[in-house]
Amino acid sequence: MTTPLVSTEIATQPDTWRQAAALAPSSPLPRRGQRVAVVGCGTSWFIAQAYAARREGLGHGVTDAFAASEFPTGRDYDLVVAISRSGTTSEVLTLLRKLRGNVPTLAIIGDPDSPGREAADEVVTLPFADERSVVQTRFATSTLSLLRAGLGEDVESLAAAAKDAVRWSAPSALLERTQITFLGRGWSVGLAHEAALKCREAALAWTESYPAMDYRHGPKAISDENSAVVFLGSRPDGLVEEVEATGALALWFDEDPQLTLVRCQLFAVAYALSKGLDPDRPRHLTRSIILSGE
Amino acid sequence: MTTPLVSTEIATQPDTWRQAAALAPSSPLPRRGQRVAVVGCGTSWFIAQAYAARREGLGHGVTDAFAASEFPTGRDYDLVVAISRSGTTSEVLTLLRKLRGNVPTLAIIGDPDSPGREAADEVVTLPFADERSVVQTRFATSTLSLLRAGLGEDVESLAAAAKDAVRWSAPSALLERTQITFLGRGWSVGLAHEAALKCREAALAWTESYPAMDYRHGPKAISDENSAVVFLGSRPDGLVEEVEATGALALWFDEDPQLTLVRCQLFAVAYALSKGLDPDRPRHLTRSIILSGE
Repeated sequence: MTTPLVSTEIATQPDTWRQAAALAPSSPLPRRGQRVAVVGCGTSWFIAQAYAARREGLGHGVTDAFAASEFPTGRDYDLVVAISRSGTTSEVLTLLRKLRGNVPTLAIIGDPDSPGREAADEVVTLPFADERSVVQTRFATSTLSLLRAGLGEDVESLAAAAKDAVRWSAPSALLERTQITFLGRGWSVGLAHEAALKCREAALAWTESYPAMDYRHGPKAISDENSAVVFLGSRPDGLVEEVEATGALALWFDEDPQLTLVRCQLFAVAYALSKGLDPDRPRHLTRSIILSGE
Repeated sequence: MTTPLVSTEIATQPDTWRQAAALAPSSPLPRRGQRVAVVGCGTSWFIAQAYAARREGLGHGVTDAFAASEFPTGRDYDLVVAISRSGTTSEVLTLLRKLRGNVPTLAIIGDPDSPGREAADEVVTLPFADERSVVQTRFATSTLSLLRAGLGEDVESLAAAAKDAVRWSAPSALLERTQITFLGRGWSVGLAHEAALKCREAALAWTESYPAMDYRHGPKAISDENSAVVFLGSRPDGLVEEVEATGALALWFDEDPQLTLVRCQLFAVAYALSKGLDPDRPRHLTRSIILSGE
């Protein structure tokens, strides 16, 4: 089998993160103190969640994240940031058009020649991070790198560390499990959701994702010797022991959770290949979701 | 096999909903216009999500929901509402004690003799809705009924309609599927998460849950002829057809989504029994989650 497209794109992440971060100083990103909402669908929604919790956690201001289809009207925001790789996602475009003239909007888009460009007040495009793969990897993490750079975070060091992460091989003990749960805390909750989605899309796998502390409140029931639990970010006291007591494999990395997400991307691809699936052709999915009538 | 405890408790819901709603006029529930956060763990978090979206959607004021472990400090709320059946959940008690003196708090608790009583400024107890079952059903929906009555909703009609819902039998076509996705919109997104959790806890089943529009953005990949998709609340245009095109069974009910949640509870129990599992003894779980050192 030839190397999947998605594998090639995953490997470029150190470089696309640096390019994205370099755009931050000249981009109209949220300013400190602004009340911000970040929206997207699927992967972009999960990246919105991660950024929202990170921004607020670092003291830059109240930041909410919503699935674009579930945006609550009637709230006061200083800025709404929309993320869409294709720039064509129906729910995102509909929302941006509805907000026009009422709330300032910023779109972060992969494809520079897309309708999203015209739908928002301000636009940042990341054409170097756009993808041929249906399953998103580098556009999502590059968007997060841009946004994190805008919070003053050191993406250069992160990109350097990612050079190792993109060469990781998922251990066979993980590939052998048939049910995988991803757990995050704070800003890594969104990354846990994204990791789980990668495995669903590429490997049609049974994955779950939660705030780590919530694992004990029900989701734990499904863990057994067929399961693995992957931690993105810090591990609550005693939780690894609880996971292992169910027979599940517990796995974690003491690193920035964005690097662990890269490992999860690699795992999703390896998991797909181990099941004889082509990760470049995820079942039922297309590159962008445009609803009829839009 | 004798009737499971949880089945007996599910059947009492019309009555416990009425009793809960009757408490609303004399209870210190959120007032119109207040900025409110609602917190809980597991089931209680999902009920918090449903109420938050419902309250805000009905124009009663900004309402956020958080897993108790993920509550963002530094936001301005007029009231924080905590939901805990046992009144002993560690994350909830820790948060309430931290908020004391800074933000007014209200706890909604099943067990009237619990530490939660002392941890919050105000307390409403629903002892008639407390449960012997580990898997929560009527406490969750009774709490929601109390809160909905506080929004001026007609719980009496809902309880009358629930008399039919609690007698529902899940169709064999649904019981035969091995992967179930629950979809909601607006306030029923939380109910979709709760429906999915019931099936995990009672039947150790592969369930997923999303805002309905997000199904197209990746989760759809896992649907096939082994799957079912259950809608709670309205169905986005064209989505039933998309679900059915994957081979999955699409199922919906034109009714208040709280009634559909009752059907999902019944399905979870029937699903467990069909797999030879005892829904009253969910694997790895205990009635309340108290962390060591608390």
